[in-house]
Amino acid sequence: MRRKAIVLLSGGLDSATVLALAKKQDFMPYALSFRYGQRHAHELDCAQQIAAQQGVEQHLTVNLDLSVFGGSALTCADIDVPKDRSDSEMGATGDIPVTYVPARNTVFLSYALAWAEVLPALDIFIGVNALDYSGYPDCRPDYIHAFEKMANLATKIGTSGQHLRIHTPLINMKKSEIISQGLTLGVDYALTSTCYAPASNGHACGKCDACQLRLRGFQQLSLSDPAPYTS
Amino acid sequence: MRRKAIVLLSGGLDSATVLALAKKQDFMPYALSFRYGQRHAHELDCAQQIAAQQGVEQHLTVNLDLSVFGGSALTCADIDVPKDRSDSEMGATGDIPVTYVPARNTVFLSYALAWAEVLPALDIFIGVNALDYSGYPDCRPDYIHAFEKMANLATKIGTSGQHLRIHTPLINMKKSEIISQGLTLGVDYALTSTCYAPASNGHACGKCDACQLRLRGFQQLSLSDPAPYTS
Repeated sequence: MRRKAIVLLSGGLDSATVLALAKKQDFMPYALSFRYGQRHAHELDCAQQIAAQQGVEQHLTVNLDLSVFGGSALTCADIDVPKDRSDSEMGATGDIPVTYVPARNTVFLSYALAWAEVLPALDIFIGVNALDYSGYPDCRPDYIHAFEKMANLATKIGTSGQHLRIHTPLINMKKSEIISQGLTLGVDYALTSTCYAPASNGHACGKCDACQLRLRGFQQLSLSDPAPYTS
Repeated sequence: MRRKAIVLLSGGLDSATVLALAKKQDFMPYALSFRYGQRHAHELDCAQQIAAQQGVEQHLTVNLDLSVFGGSALTCADIDVPKDRSDSEMGATGDIPVTYVPARNTVFLSYALAWAEVLPALDIFIGVNALDYSGYPDCRPDYIHAFEKMANLATKIGTSGQHLRIHTPLINMKKSEIISQGLTLGVDYALTSTCYAPASNGHACGKCDACQLRLRGFQQLSLSDPAPYTS
C-alpha cells in the first residue's frame, strides 16, 4: 500500500522538486502551504498550480501570523529586501541575513507534524538545502535531525513505537543539480516562484539572494529560466 | 539587568502559576496566548485578566488554526469531551485521550521561539506537568529537552553561542503543590479557567479530566476552588 507523506510546498523551485521526488518514491503526497504574512504571497498561487499539475491527494494552506512578531524583511514592510549582493554577503560568511524569518521552518514543521498525527502519516518532506542557501540556521542537517528526534517524542506516533521521518532530499544538492533532477521528473519551473520581492504581477526581481541563486543554477546548466522576470 | 522571558499563558491554573514563578525569579514576563480553535475560548478572557493582574510587560494572543487538521475533542465539534472518567481512564494507563490536540505544545513553543528571537529573550516558560496530567506525550521531560536542543540549533540564538532554555517549573509538582505555591505568590485562581468544555457563561463543568484534577488539588489542601462551576 502506498504511504501518505506530507510535503511542505512553498511554491518555489526547491519544494516543487521535493514534491516530484516524493511522488517518485511512491508516496501519496499531501501538500501543505502557509500564508504567513510574507511579502511574496504570489508564491501561494504558484503552490496551488504546482499541486494541481503534479496531482497531490490534498493541498491545505494554513493561515498563520508570524508578522505579529516582526523582525524579518520577508514579513516586515519596514525592512528592505537586499538586492545585488555578492557571494560573501549572501551567507558564505556565516552571517544570517535580514530575510531570515525567525523560527519559520520550526513553525512550518510543527504544523506538518500536527497534520501527520491526524492523517496519519509517518513521512514529512521539506526542501531545505545546506549548500546553495541563504545562511539560515534552520536549514542545517543538525537542526533537521534534532527536529525529527523531538517530533517522535512529541507525538502519539513516537509513543506507539513507530518512527516519523523528516525527509530532506535536497539537503546536499547544488541548485543546478536540483533543477536537473526536477526536469527529469517533469517539474514545470515556469510555475514556480522563488523571488523574495516579486512585482505585483508576480514577476521575479532577479536581484534578491533567492533570484540570484536560482538564475545561477539555470546558467550552470546552460538553460534559461522559464519563469517570468521583471528585467 | 532583568532578563526578558516568554511565558505561555493559556489562562488555566498551571500557566497562571508559572507566570508568578517567572516573576519571582525576577524575569520580565512577556505573555503569549493562542486562539487555536479551542472550544474553551473563555480561557483567553482569563489569560487577559491574569496578565493584567500580574503586570506583564506585553501580552500577545496569536490566532492559529489547528482545527484545520481536526482530530481532537478540543478543536473538533464532532468529538465529545469525556466526563466523569476514573483514574485508570484518565491517563494512568498510558492511553492518550481524545482531548489531546496533535502537536499543540510543539506549535505553541515554536511560536514562543519565534518571539524569543525577535525580542530577544533566552528564556521560555511553559506549565507542562508530568504527574497530575492527562497523558499527553508533549508534557514529558524528554520531549522538553529535545525541543530545547532543537530550538538552539534552529535559531540565531544558538549560532551566536548563547543558550535558549525552556523552563518547566511545574513538571514534577503535584496539582496541590502547584496551587499551594501559587497561593503564596498571590495568584488569584478565581481568574483562571481549566475546564475543557465550559458553559457559555464560562463556568466550569466540574466533570472533565481537567476539572477533576483541579478540584482534587484543592480538596487535598482542604480548600475550596474559587472559580465558578456549573453544578
